[in-house]
Amino acid sequence: MPSYTAPTRDLQFVLQDVLGVAEADIPGYADLDAQMTAAILEEAGKLAVEILAPLNAVGDVEGCTLENGVVRTPSGFRDAYQTMRQGGWMGLDADPEYGGQGMPYILNAAVGEMFISSNMAFNMYQGLTHGAYSAIHTHGSDGQKATYLPKMIDGEWSGTMNLTEPQCGTDLGLIRTRAEPQDGGSYRITGQKIWISAGEHDLSENIIHLVLARIPGGPDGVKGISLFIVPKFMVNGDGSLGDRNAVTCGGLESKMGIHGNATCVMHYDGATGFLIGEAHKGLRAMFTMMNEARIGVGLQGYSQGVVAYQNAAAFAKDRLQGRDVTGAKNPDGPADPIIVHPDVRRNLMHQKSFIEAARAFALWGAMLIDRSRRTGDADAEALVSLLTPVIKGFLTDKGFETTVLAQQTLGGSGFVRESGLEQFVRDARITMIYEGTNGVQALDLVGRKLGQDGGKAIRAFFELVKDFIKANDGDETLKRDFLDPLKAASKDLQAAAMYFVQAGMKNPQNALAGSYDFLHLFGHVCLGLMWARMAKVAQAGLAGGNGDAAFFKGKLATGRYYMARQLPMTATHLARIQSGAEPVMALEAEAF
Amino acid sequence: MPSYTAPTRDLQFVLQDVLGVAEADIPGYADLDAQMTAAILEEAGKLAVEILAPLNAVGDVEGCTLENGVVRTPSGFRDAYQTMRQGGWMGLDADPEYGGQGMPYILNAAVGEMFISSNMAFNMYQGLTHGAYSAIHTHGSDGQKATYLPKMIDGEWSGTMNLTEPQCGTDLGLIRTRAEPQDGGSYRITGQKIWISAGEHDLSENIIHLVLARIPGGPDGVKGISLFIVPKFMVNGDGSLGDRNAVTCGGLESKMGIHGNATCVMHYDGATGFLIGEAHKGLRAMFTMMNEARIGVGLQGYSQGVVAYQNAAAFAKDRLQGRDVTGAKNPDGPADPIIVHPDVRRNLMHQKSFIEAARAFALWGAMLIDRSRRTGDADAEALVSLLTPVIKGFLTDKGFETTVLAQQTLGGSGFVRESGLEQFVRDARITMIYEGTNGVQALDLVGRKLGQDGGKAIRAFFELVKDFIKANDGDETLKRDFLDPLKAASKDLQAAAMYFVQAGMKNPQNALAGSYDFLHLFGHVCLGLMWARMAKVAQAGLAGGNGDAAFFKGKLATGRYYMARQLPMTATHLARIQSGAEPVMALEAEAF
Repeated sequence: MPSYTAPTRDLQFVLQDVLGVAEADIPGYADLDAQMTAAILEEAGKLAVEILAPLNAVGDVEGCTLENGVVRTPSGFRDAYQTMRQGGWMGLDADPEYGGQGMPYILNAAVGEMFISSNMAFNMYQGLTHGAYSAIHTHGSDGQKATYLPKMIDGEWSGTMNLTEPQCGTDLGLIRTRAEPQDGGSYRITGQKIWISAGEHDLSENIIHLVLARIPGGPDGVKGISLFIVPKFMVNGDGSLGDRNAVTCGGLESKMGIHGNATCVMHYDGATGFLIGEAHKGLRAMFTMMNEARIGVGLQGYSQGVVAYQNAAAFAKDRLQGRDVTGAKNPDGPADPIIVHPDVRRNLMHQKSFIEAARAFALWGAMLIDRSRRTGDADAEALVSLLTPVIKGFLTDKGFETTVLAQQTLGGSGFVRESGLEQFVRDARITMIYEGTNGVQALDLVGRKLGQDGGKAIRAFFELVKDFIKANDGDETLKRDFLDPLKAASKDLQAAAMYFVQAGMKNPQNALAGSYDFLHLFGHVCLGLMWARMAKVAQAGLAGGNGDAAFFKGKLATGRYYMARQLPMTATHLARIQSGAEPVMALEAEAF
Repeated sequence: MPSYTAPTRDLQFVLQDVLGVAEADIPGYADLDAQMTAAILEEAGKLAVEILAPLNAVGDVEGCTLENGVVRTPSGFRDAYQTMRQGGWMGLDADPEYGGQGMPYILNAAVGEMFISSNMAFNMYQGLTHGAYSAIHTHGSDGQKATYLPKMIDGEWSGTMNLTEPQCGTDLGLIRTRAEPQDGGSYRITGQKIWISAGEHDLSENIIHLVLARIPGGPDGVKGISLFIVPKFMVNGDGSLGDRNAVTCGGLESKMGIHGNATCVMHYDGATGFLIGEAHKGLRAMFTMMNEARIGVGLQGYSQGVVAYQNAAAFAKDRLQGRDVTGAKNPDGPADPIIVHPDVRRNLMHQKSFIEAARAFALWGAMLIDRSRRTGDADAEALVSLLTPVIKGFLTDKGFETTVLAQQTLGGSGFVRESGLEQFVRDARITMIYEGTNGVQALDLVGRKLGQDGGKAIRAFFELVKDFIKANDGDETLKRDFLDPLKAASKDLQAAAMYFVQAGMKNPQNALAGSYDFLHLFGHVCLGLMWARMAKVAQAGLAGGNGDAAFFKGKLATGRYYMARQLPMTATHLARIQSGAEPVMALEAEAF
């Protein structure tokens, strides 16, 4: 069985030393002093290790079952859910007005990494609830908020998001589910939704479905979509549960991974629903949740990489096979631990140098969300809006890759289910797909975000990189190992953006055919920036002489690997982008 | 359920037009005229489509079961096995002296692609038998050959290879299984072997295990290993089956994929075994099989990519979502097929441009094996020996990547088991691991093959590339689209090899830390060469005007994609290699 260790030291490093949360001028951040974040991370880490991690394989093997409309979650999930509720973890960053703890989102994200690493399928139940909470909180009426939010924050009720239908995935304009007005101001919802995570289960008393549907007579396409609250059980005036609503689970999907989470076909057979916000403005309501939800999926991607890497490293230090080419390291044993072999170490360094920068990147994104929400800073909002598809797309692609690399470290053992590595691969795989496939993220980035406000956000990003380089280039070591490679990579990114402006003008396909590579190129520059920032802190820590020298040295060595061995990918991405649409589009559709 | 179409036209193109088998000066190749290979490919394709493909999902869902020492294969496998036997497919390239058909190995490989694409787990039963056949055929005594080969060629008996033990994977020097001499010249074999593919099953009357074991008193390490034949049932003088031997299946592994193939723990409890070849020279006997076995795994890797791609392309032409940015292509429908979107097409082109060159590369490797075996050409042997780790490592890494890309094309449908895509991903994953992990392939390439005979083989490869470029650079289009990119990539490969010579001299870790990237860099140059050769043929075909113009145009467009979008990876691989061992080895082992 795989093991999991809570990386509290690394999380503290990012929160306190790199992002400096305690000193940030964001309302609520003053609470995040080192002692406080350490205590919360410690407590969450304990839960992750002791309660959630042991249920991860159980969830995978048992999966969920549907019988007579009732979905049962795997053994142990109900108890664990109650433990999480009692600990108040579900409302950590929720509005205190409705019973939440009102902590910054960044803390939720930091804690979330550990909950996801230890048990991604389990954590999705509360993750979906959080998404539904946010939609109601932002767009619901006061009455709706009072009715639903306290119990969702508490976890007594859970939530879902219902977008997809058989004929309608990315293209939400194709939604057919109907919402007919009925007496009393509510609507009759009729239609079928598929791939609804946590659509039905036995963890909570009630399930609050958020459903995209079409009010007859409204505009065609996405402009005619509205968002509805459809509770599984109707809620009486006093908050108690009333009749069962006409929404049922018609089936569970058999999936590659995340077996512990119920992926449901949902039938709405004239169910009663309540409009959230304005009619026909449902898409906008969904969109406001998306940055957060997509950053959450980015967290999932790299978090699976974290736990996979931990197990790969443990295996490599333990497994004896072959001898160090420079001389035996374990001369009294039958062979050396395989971590002595350069190619094994290359593999581990690839994993480690990604996950540590990914953590910093995701938490930086979370901090930008806090800044935008808590101070109304429009620049922060524009920047995080630009970075969101990168966090989602890059961290899930590379997070999945990391699980595959970790599995490879184990050789044949990695292919055997017992080791648990192959579950991380199967679970991580979905993160590249849901909440918008990574191809759709690339389209969002290049087709929408990049050019917004005349490219203001990307220019701000370039300024930010330039300023950091300029402010620190007096340090020769930092310059050579980190700033110069970052500068080169950033130049590649600028050249790619410039190509899109010029060649995309002639033919938009020139930009779209390079969108995926642009997302990756951007991701590498972001992680390069994170490493440069972490390296600066680590150097200062070493120079200060009163910190954990081995820890700081480790950061520098890991960062150097990233700059030397991962960042050069930007050149290949740029070359691909600059080859334009012709090689991509030349083949006739019939020839595929 | 996924579909499979036999790519007979593409296989013919490679065999006849690109490799020119019918005109090759290799004994036996004169038989391979276009009509003959077409007929065999047609027949094998029919079997693959009609018999094997429908059993692929069955094998995955049912898996194998062990009860009272008996392993049952999935429903339908027994009948399919008999069909394959009756068709004579198991002995296609086997020695006619023992009942084989004596066809060149290249034909076996071409047919094998289709059998693997349609059902990899099933095909492994005969694949392992073929490996055991080769070992006995090359190293066995006349008596052993007469006893075992005819029934193995016929498929009445099957075979296995037993190398791995719990403490011993890559490092075969750690083998503990004992072989004690007993009266009559045989040995008592005692020990445990793990991960034995097809170690026990219900498809054949007898199973001939080839087992690596240690004769007491022999040298330590790999120099004291011998190879033994251990039949499941003893064979009487008249060829009939005698007593059950003391070899049993102690358990089946629960794996990520290839569920239809039984992966067994094998217990040898004083089983009777017969030495093959000389005592203590067992490793050499295993090595002679390895080129072929590793090329077989390379075939597996890209073949899973082939079937995955076919399903991705079909989905992309069928699924309606969104509109072409340059104007609706399906204006009367609710949306356009997703193949109109540049990023979907990029994904499909990435898959297609890989698999078609991979096919040419693997079959070229098979042709070199034929040349080396059938003409004794030492240069051909040296070249294929150099290319073998590339065929195995590169085609399986990229083959797996292709299945993941194909799964991505389907979005959420790709994650659902019903589509079958996720099975291709899970099945393809093992190819990167077994028959030597791809890290071990890289070690074999850089640590052993590259420097052999003063680098004679790699220099011959460079000559070959140079000669092809020189012979064709009068053609401006070919030069611009194919030869120039190939030249640049080949230069990167030369620079990498040069770096190894210089920096590896100072510290072998400088070479080993770059071995994996070198394998990939080499792989890209090989596929670039294959595309240049295919492009030349396609251009000639187009110019000739009497072929299938759409087919040739498709080849050129697909090849151009590879050169423009995949080949630039060589620069990144070179940059990584030239960064040396420092970034890889700097972190202390304890810090992982």
